[in-house]
Amino acid sequence: MKKVINDPNQIVEEMLKGMVAAHGDLLKRVEGTTVIARADAPVQGKVALVSGGGSGHEPAHAGFVGKGVLDAAVSGEVFTSPTPDQVLEAIKAVDGGEGVLLIIKNYTGDVMNFEMAAELAEMEEIRVDKVIVNDDVAVEDSTYTTGRRGIAGTLFVHKLAGAKAESGASLAEVKATAEKTVANVRSMGMALTAATIPSTGKAGFQIAEDEMEIGMGIHGEPGISRDKIKSADEIAETLVQKILDDGVHQSGDEVAVMINGLGGTPLMELYVLNGKVNDLLKEKGFTVHKTFVGEYMTAIDMAGLSVTLLKLDDELKELLAAPTNTLGF
Amino acid sequence: MKKVINDPNQIVEEMLKGMVAAHGDLLKRVEGTTVIARADAPVQGKVALVSGGGSGHEPAHAGFVGKGVLDAAVSGEVFTSPTPDQVLEAIKAVDGGEGVLLIIKNYTGDVMNFEMAAELAEMEEIRVDKVIVNDDVAVEDSTYTTGRRGIAGTLFVHKLAGAKAESGASLAEVKATAEKTVANVRSMGMALTAATIPSTGKAGFQIAEDEMEIGMGIHGEPGISRDKIKSADEIAETLVQKILDDGVHQSGDEVAVMINGLGGTPLMELYVLNGKVNDLLKEKGFTVHKTFVGEYMTAIDMAGLSVTLLKLDDELKELLAAPTNTLGF
Repeated sequence: MKKVINDPNQIVEEMLKGMVAAHGDLLKRVEGTTVIARADAPVQGKVALVSGGGSGHEPAHAGFVGKGVLDAAVSGEVFTSPTPDQVLEAIKAVDGGEGVLLIIKNYTGDVMNFEMAAELAEMEEIRVDKVIVNDDVAVEDSTYTTGRRGIAGTLFVHKLAGAKAESGASLAEVKATAEKTVANVRSMGMALTAATIPSTGKAGFQIAEDEMEIGMGIHGEPGISRDKIKSADEIAETLVQKILDDGVHQSGDEVAVMINGLGGTPLMELYVLNGKVNDLLKEKGFTVHKTFVGEYMTAIDMAGLSVTLLKLDDELKELLAAPTNTLGF
Repeated sequence: MKKVINDPNQIVEEMLKGMVAAHGDLLKRVEGTTVIARADAPVQGKVALVSGGGSGHEPAHAGFVGKGVLDAAVSGEVFTSPTPDQVLEAIKAVDGGEGVLLIIKNYTGDVMNFEMAAELAEMEEIRVDKVIVNDDVAVEDSTYTTGRRGIAGTLFVHKLAGAKAESGASLAEVKATAEKTVANVRSMGMALTAATIPSTGKAGFQIAEDEMEIGMGIHGEPGISRDKIKSADEIAETLVQKILDDGVHQSGDEVAVMINGLGGTPLMELYVLNGKVNDLLKEKGFTVHKTFVGEYMTAIDMAGLSVTLLKLDDELKELLAAPTNTLGF
């Protein structure tokens, strides 16, 4: 296994330790948990945002903890939902008296465990609400999901709801912003290789040297087609068209774009793809307001990428421009 | 070849196009060249910084163009020095009347071409000076180098000289800061896989599934030993010890640390390594002032990483903390 690790069973623990060692000015570990919180948490008088999920998607989610984005991120084992008690610890660590919004990617285990944590928190008199992100247009229902999967579009929900919370908005207002973002964001991905799972040291699935898979999920869940590897331009056309076919984004709209690498694809290739995505959107009558290119929601070392489009309005543009202090944005 | 590309011969051109399409608020292309400059270049009355080198190391160097760091970056073909005329275009595009400092990684081709560009610029009455970065302690002399190679420590030279230039310092003062940084910075890397070169579609060298190479260069140049893959803790010990053996960093020093991924190694593993590096430095009596973990100077999709230590003093700490507006910092 070509990995820089010690004991695969300790990889999440050691990652969290190394992260706090590097960024103690920004982040803290909630002792005895897998929760990373803002160093200044709880922020009194502010709605708090909690997200998380299985590990292996770094920098998501702990890399988005900080001023203007998340208050805490909970890490499960690799590609495994965190348990309800861990999510509860996150909620308790960041509640500043104005309530906590949970931002959950739509995987059955995550939804179940975050909802159970919300119930436990309410028993402790903490107000909790939630939004579920399901931006992946590739497939309805999947290996770990009923309904669409949540992928890189989740970062836009973190960013915009985070900015709204930072502005002093109420829990209901922050939730409304998060829900508007979920309604306006769609993503579509593709993969060239499987992620190498640390516990087994093996690829999560087999894919031939000349093949790619369109619509693959960030845990290696099946996509919609396996084809010979196409050119970057053809891949851009396929991903953008599938997103637009979903009907949320119309010619004339202003959009934010995210070109997200899955871990093994170099920045060089993400920029090549972005050149074509940008051309396509302009041809189709869109105005690209802002573009993010990099690794935001990875799948360990998977080669591949996703494209995310977010429809903007004046409120969302203002929130997108708000300052942040996190590792990932 | 598992890459998202069109024509391998157009990959640098298409990357630069996609980069400017994404970040036009921050960066501009100097027309007809491979130069990426600050959108507001030339900045009158400020010493300008130019760096660059072969492509394939992204985000270096164009990702460090912007306020507080570089004024321009010149991109050669993949793993190939930019030509003198391209470097000259960069110098001309950013000179704001106070002179231009070239920051050159120590590879024979880069040094020759940047020096030739400096001579050409001086014929056009532009003051130019240079520093050469040779932070890699692995080997003396190498495939493309006489003397030590320049690797991820170059980013600290960009950052600190950039902050000095932004403060209004003279060309001589900015050069002195850059030289102090070069004197204080040392790096050491290792690799688990070869980079896949776009023009050939093949790995640059062969390495067995259970092997790693200590001291490998960022173009796949030979290192100092090939061994069975060791644990992250053992790798950390080897890299840190080799750096400390060079004698620049002494117990009691304050240091900045960079854990740099080479492209194919996930952030998770970089953080695991950082946990051990941090422990080792503390045990040895160092104070870790600031830590950078991520991809700064990559080798396309190579799995592997490098550790960089920078000895700090009050001036360098202040410059390290100065604000920046770039993609990479």
